[in-house]
Amino acid sequence: MSTSDFQASYACSEGCGYRASLLEVVYRCPKCDGLLEVAHDVEALRSVPAEEWKRRFAQRFGSSRLPYASGVWGKHEWVYPQLPAGDIVSLGEGRVPLKPLPRMAAELGLASLDLKECGVSPTGSFKDWGMTVLVSAVKHMRARGVPIRAVACASTGDTSAALSAYCAAAGIPSVVFLPRNKVSLSQLVQPVANGARVLSLDTDFDGCMKLVQQVTRDAGLYLANSMNSLRIEGQKVVAIELCQDLDWEPPDWVVIPGGNLGNASALGKGFELMLSLGLISKRPRIAVAQAQRANPLVRSFRGGFAELVPMQAERTLASAIQIGNPVSFRRAVRILKAFNGVVEEATESELANAAARADREGTFTCPHTGVALGALEKLVAQGVIARGSRVAVVSTAHGLKFPDFKVGYHQGSLADVASRFSNPPIDLPANLEAVRGALSDL
Amino acid sequence: MSTSDFQASYACSEGCGYRASLLEVVYRCPKCDGLLEVAHDVEALRSVPAEEWKRRFAQRFGSSRLPYASGVWGKHEWVYPQLPAGDIVSLGEGRVPLKPLPRMAAELGLASLDLKECGVSPTGSFKDWGMTVLVSAVKHMRARGVPIRAVACASTGDTSAALSAYCAAAGIPSVVFLPRNKVSLSQLVQPVANGARVLSLDTDFDGCMKLVQQVTRDAGLYLANSMNSLRIEGQKVVAIELCQDLDWEPPDWVVIPGGNLGNASALGKGFELMLSLGLISKRPRIAVAQAQRANPLVRSFRGGFAELVPMQAERTLASAIQIGNPVSFRRAVRILKAFNGVVEEATESELANAAARADREGTFTCPHTGVALGALEKLVAQGVIARGSRVAVVSTAHGLKFPDFKVGYHQGSLADVASRFSNPPIDLPANLEAVRGALSDL
Repeated sequence: MSTSDFQASYACSEGCGYRASLLEVVYRCPKCDGLLEVAHDVEALRSVPAEEWKRRFAQRFGSSRLPYASGVWGKHEWVYPQLPAGDIVSLGEGRVPLKPLPRMAAELGLASLDLKECGVSPTGSFKDWGMTVLVSAVKHMRARGVPIRAVACASTGDTSAALSAYCAAAGIPSVVFLPRNKVSLSQLVQPVANGARVLSLDTDFDGCMKLVQQVTRDAGLYLANSMNSLRIEGQKVVAIELCQDLDWEPPDWVVIPGGNLGNASALGKGFELMLSLGLISKRPRIAVAQAQRANPLVRSFRGGFAELVPMQAERTLASAIQIGNPVSFRRAVRILKAFNGVVEEATESELANAAARADREGTFTCPHTGVALGALEKLVAQGVIARGSRVAVVSTAHGLKFPDFKVGYHQGSLADVASRFSNPPIDLPANLEAVRGALSDL
Repeated sequence: MSTSDFQASYACSEGCGYRASLLEVVYRCPKCDGLLEVAHDVEALRSVPAEEWKRRFAQRFGSSRLPYASGVWGKHEWVYPQLPAGDIVSLGEGRVPLKPLPRMAAELGLASLDLKECGVSPTGSFKDWGMTVLVSAVKHMRARGVPIRAVACASTGDTSAALSAYCAAAGIPSVVFLPRNKVSLSQLVQPVANGARVLSLDTDFDGCMKLVQQVTRDAGLYLANSMNSLRIEGQKVVAIELCQDLDWEPPDWVVIPGGNLGNASALGKGFELMLSLGLISKRPRIAVAQAQRANPLVRSFRGGFAELVPMQAERTLASAIQIGNPVSFRRAVRILKAFNGVVEEATESELANAAARADREGTFTCPHTGVALGALEKLVAQGVIARGSRVAVVSTAHGLKFPDFKVGYHQGSLADVASRFSNPPIDLPANLEAVRGALSDL
């Protein structure tokens, strides 16, 4: 049975009935303006027994050649089945370590605590998982004659890094829109190095978003923003790979940081598909973690998800989730309800200390992962996450992308952060006695 | 057949006949002061057919659980066979992408050009491959009652990052020696975050080396420096995984950057073992690449390897290989002779431009990988590497560890570098016509 025996298409996520081919250049439902999602033919996928999917996924995990050496494309039929293997643009994303944190687990009274390290990845963040699907889809559209000249986004961080790297690999031009004087060259050096056309505009971030949306109405420019549902198809593989890592025994809880909430939606979509196809039988609970300074979902959760009140997000160390009006709010709420989910927040001090605590066990966490770990600590303290639980945390980026955060923490110079785990160098004269003295307690 | 049916031990690499158990705390041959190497029982390993090794390695590559989810420990019998699986300290190193550079290959007239991206790794460099073996060996020694209280190194870069991360995961104290005021906190933030005891000493780097060697004469402190032969056992797996990626058809040439030359020695050791056990039948040629400002091996090569004249290395962008007196010179020369090898150098401008050229295909190379790519360009131009060759380049670290190098290149501010591929942002007013104009050629 070949992967092209299965078919996926766009469907309106609001259920208005709109469908379209994945070859269409379309971002939102033209009938009701809802977000789109990629809908799979679950009945057809069910014709393959669950054990056969597990066998196939395990075998492909052992591939050393692309496309199946990619953790995402090893699940080809579940991602974009009719995409020909030759149109896949992969940098070898996915198949990342599941790093246990046994000491933190013991201190919190958990049965296990594992970090799914999505940042040990070609461009250093989980965005690779989704971007491989989007850029592959663009390559396929171009091969089928859809006149796409370039792919564009307005992003100052991980999204533009991933977009430009995958486009560079594919030989497709990429364009990044950013506000002049608001972003340093070091934040943008990945797209610059990967040959993106970087436009530095005399406006703010909202102005960039507006312009990118105007320009991409010209169908020759494809829009790679966070509402693009192709990216969700790659990101949902995080859930699948996590279950595979755990021999298809899902954890009791998954904790994930949330900004625009596409990531939380993707996680739920991955679990739903595994449940539908019988690869797992238990539904984990999901906890979405937000920075206290950008917490619209926390506020909505406290009101029973009755509404979302957009807010002005304040400046937070967790800069990638500094978002006051999340585009995937409705999708995420649906997932949270389906997975008996909760939402918790972390202050600047909580997120920085939780990140540093995990680092003491050999990882190197980004501030967003710190938000998830800080929220976890509180949920355990509150009894929401019961002692003895098996918990997985989605780590979204490599700490190497955040040197100022790490240095500032250990220098004790981060605003509003009391560094509990700081570990500054020890100044010593250069003689043997001094050194022996400094090590006498080891 | 269990992994413990095979045995490895220390042997003097100068052939003086010294042997010792891998449980000994020993760094150099006590009889002749030569470097040690880990010697495997090749006859015993040969009792397993080559096809069975390939099958076993492929199957383990598909593991999602440690230890075999590690690219290094998937080759357990070839690395440290008698080490119990329970003593393995792994962060999920190895099993990294082999990234094709098809445009650069076409421009150079090569049949293929692939980067083995060893920096897509937990701590961001190839040092992880070796450090997992060293720290696992220490955990095992401690379990057997060898009184090791901590592991120490004098390093300002990737080695201290890897040492501290693996020790943190194992709960073993680590100690890093460094010269005060010579190293910024951002260069040291990985060991600091991973809880190493970082000693900032009132001396220079040589002074640190001297002190760490004195202190580690106390057997309670284990020395993790670059002459430690346990690390070579992990690093040699780069060669094995590369051949596995290529369906056991070795490339015609492997290009690798060289400083202390342990890495080049390890590469050769991996190929030798595969040849001995029949997994490959062809001997690739090896090219070691050095920065022109730290090129003692280049000079020695030009004299037919008759001698090594230690030199004062000059400051180079390729800071990790800024070494004038390589500790593994003799080992590396033996390998180069066995693999019909060559040595080439790259200037600052050549290494920076070659790195930027590769980045245009979606990677994000470190300056040392730039040295290898720059040397490759010259070897092709000279006809040493023939057109039509299949070439692999060992990429040693993630470019995210070198933001100043990347930013400086695209700003055109690196000393002695003429940036041929710089791609600075384009300043524009925030209106649709200006943006359309800037994209009209796409």
